[in-house]
Order: sequence, then C-alpha cells, then structure tokens
Amino acid sequence: MSAEKIKSTKLFENIKYGADGLVPCVVQDSEDGAVLMVAYMNADSLKKTLEGGKACFFSRSRQKFWLKGEESGNFQEVKSVFIDCDGDCVLIKVKQIGGAACHTGMRSCFYRRVEKGSELVAEGQRVFDPASVYKKQ
Amino acid sequence: MSAEKIKSTKLFENIKYGADGLVPCVVQDSEDGAVLMVAYMNADSLKKTLEGGKACFFSRSRQKFWLKGEESGNFQEVKSVFIDCDGDCVLIKVKQIGGAACHTGMRSCFYRRVEKGSELVAEGQRVFDPASVYKKQ
Repeated sequence: MSAEKIKSTKLFENIKYGADGLVPCVVQDSEDGAVLMVAYMNADSLKKTLEGGKACFFSRSRQKFWLKGEESGNFQEVKSVFIDCDGDCVLIKVKQIGGAACHTGMRSCFYRRVEKGSELVAEGQRVFDPASVYKKQ
Repeated sequence: MSAEKIKSTKLFENIKYGADGLVPCVVQDSEDGAVLMVAYMNADSLKKTLEGGKACFFSRSRQKFWLKGEESGNFQEVKSVFIDCDGDCVLIKVKQIGGAACHTGMRSCFYRRVEKGSELVAEGQRVFDPASVYKKQ
C-alpha cells in the first residue's frame, strides 16, 4: 500500500469529477451483489448521500438533484461507499427498498442480456408495475 | 414486459453513446459478483468485446483502443453482457485472469472505502506487485 499511503486519504481531495461536474456511481445490492443501476453524482449529491444514508444522484435528463425513491418510495439505504483507484467513479452498496431499482419495475436496470452477439433478451424479475408506482407519469 | 417488447431488441439500435462516443462499462466478477472496475467503451471496443470474448475498452487517458490485460496478461474473459434500461451503460460479467483487475495490483479498483463521512480506508487484497507486472512503466 506504499504508493497509496503517501496520498491524501480524504475523499473530497481524491474524487475527480468530469467536465460536467459529475462522477458515475455504481449501485450494488449489499446482500447478493447484484448490480442494480448506474447513475451520476455531483459533489452535492455525494455529500447528501454520505450525510443522509440514502442514495442521492444528479439527474442528467432533468438536470437536478435526485433523491432516489423520492417519487416511488423505493429508497436505497446506503451500507458502504467506495471510490476507485482513479477517483473518478463511486460504488455504493445498498439495501434496495421495495426490491427493485429500475423505473421499469425490474429489479435491476441491467435486465437486458446480449445474446448471439447483438440480440437483447430480457431476464430477471419484474417487481412492481410502473404505472401504479409512478402515478404522476 | 409489454413496453420493452415493442422496442427493437437489437443491441446496436438500443445503445446510446455519450457526446464523446463512449458508454461506461461496469465489470463484475462472474463468480462472486464483486465489482472489479468501471471503464469506457466505444462502438469498436464493444464490438470487439462481443466478437472476441475478452473485455476491450477505449482508454480515455491514452485516447486509444485498449484490450484489458494487453500488457499485464490479466485479461477478462467475458461470460455475459448486459445493457441498462436507458441503453447508456454496459455491464459485463467476467472471469478475471490473474485474479486482479486494478493496475495497483488490488483485486478491485474500488479498494478504498469511505469511513466517517470522508476518510478513505484501503481494504481488500493486493494480488500482484505492479512493478513486476507493468515492466514498461
């Protein structure tokens, strides 16, 4: 660990945001290790995630702060937070409230597997009906 | 699955590259589910990953095609490939040759955990000595 020990051990001195002020964040189920989703954080959403213990992101499509689950109630309780060797990616391990992370109602956003080189096949479980969970849409 | 079924099931019609022509790719150990690293793919590296069965990326720092393991020998044998609901992120499950994905010799690039809100603590196992693996550096 020699090289790493010399460097700062402060999170906010090690994290490197992109030109857009964001870092990608991988969200993993803390219990079975399933990769649930990837979203983006800015400094504010990372800070609020660490302070509040619920996963917060910055929505690129809506260009605003996003508390995951604010509409559906399917919050993500953060169990641990990691950064990668370059400091330009975050990994959080969470307990997924409601059992599903994807807005489609599927447990994981990565529910489409590539087969035969280019064909997408849906797999995994649909946990909720999006029409009943996102009533505003 | 109704909404999804109407859409195209072709990978290359569903994937959405960023303005830089890249998508982030999460690399997960196919055996125990550990998140090993996140790197970026362009259309060419995704195609070569699917064709050749070894993880290929586009190095943002070197701005060139990157066959993971080309220097260290620590290739990633791809077991399955997924895309997320938005089509702007890829997940691959791999067998990590050599047992470590990170250039530091740590098994996972996400070897620094955030503690007490802002302190980084290294954890996990160092599998190889980078000085002996990357002899050109």
